[in-house]
Amino acid sequence: MADINAVAKAFTDFYYPAFDNDRASLQALYRDRSMLTWEQEQIMGVTNIIEKLKNLPFTKVVHRVVTVDAQPASATIASLVVLVTGQLLVDDGANVLQFSQMFQLIPENGTYYVQNDVFRLVYG
Amino acid sequence: MADINAVAKAFTDFYYPAFDNDRASLQALYRDRSMLTWEQEQIMGVTNIIEKLKNLPFTKVVHRVVTVDAQPASATIASLVVLVTGQLLVDDGANVLQFSQMFQLIPENGTYYVQNDVFRLVYG
Repeated sequence: MADINAVAKAFTDFYYPAFDNDRASLQALYRDRSMLTWEQEQIMGVTNIIEKLKNLPFTKVVHRVVTVDAQPASATIASLVVLVTGQLLVDDGANVLQFSQMFQLIPENGTYYVQNDVFRLVYG
Repeated sequence: MADINAVAKAFTDFYYPAFDNDRASLQALYRDRSMLTWEQEQIMGVTNIIEKLKNLPFTKVVHRVVTVDAQPASATIASLVVLVTGQLLVDDGANVLQFSQMFQLIPENGTYYVQNDVFRLVYG
């Protein structure tokens, strides 16, 4: 499953720096049928998702990715599911939070979009 | 998405007590095409998955589920993706570990089987 892992790595290498530097640039990754669950809140569609991400209650954020695991998600199309765990440094790193995030990525025109996105903080 | 959440809840209500009390009983939930990634190790097929789970390096384990989030995973079949976070109490609770686990559940004959299963400990 080397290819699946390479896709997941390329995705997270793009996603988290984009999130940390310019959340609006994540727009290219979502579609109208995309779903985001952010700390239990359910949001659907690219416009609503980007609006949610832009208005999160922190200004500066840095993601440190610790693990990325991927599996093929379908027998018929080259979709994949990805589980990420890592750390979130919010507003100059005063708080280090653990997070867990799950994606389903769907192939489209030689790239992938995010069909499912579930984000959770993990409290110790 | 009430129905999706009910399915996810029913699944986790069955899965974790079964894991904690008799791991071999999880056999009914996996198929030959099922995939498990356990702390980076990739395992395929019901026989190999149950063998792996039965031989994990702890005798007693209790899962405490903290969050369960679910989303529909497909436009054409009633599959769902589930992200679980929680705590793992290993061997009489001397160690409390955080975990994160992702499933894709596929409907089959009125019930669901696990197509994708990714488990990770989350270190603080």
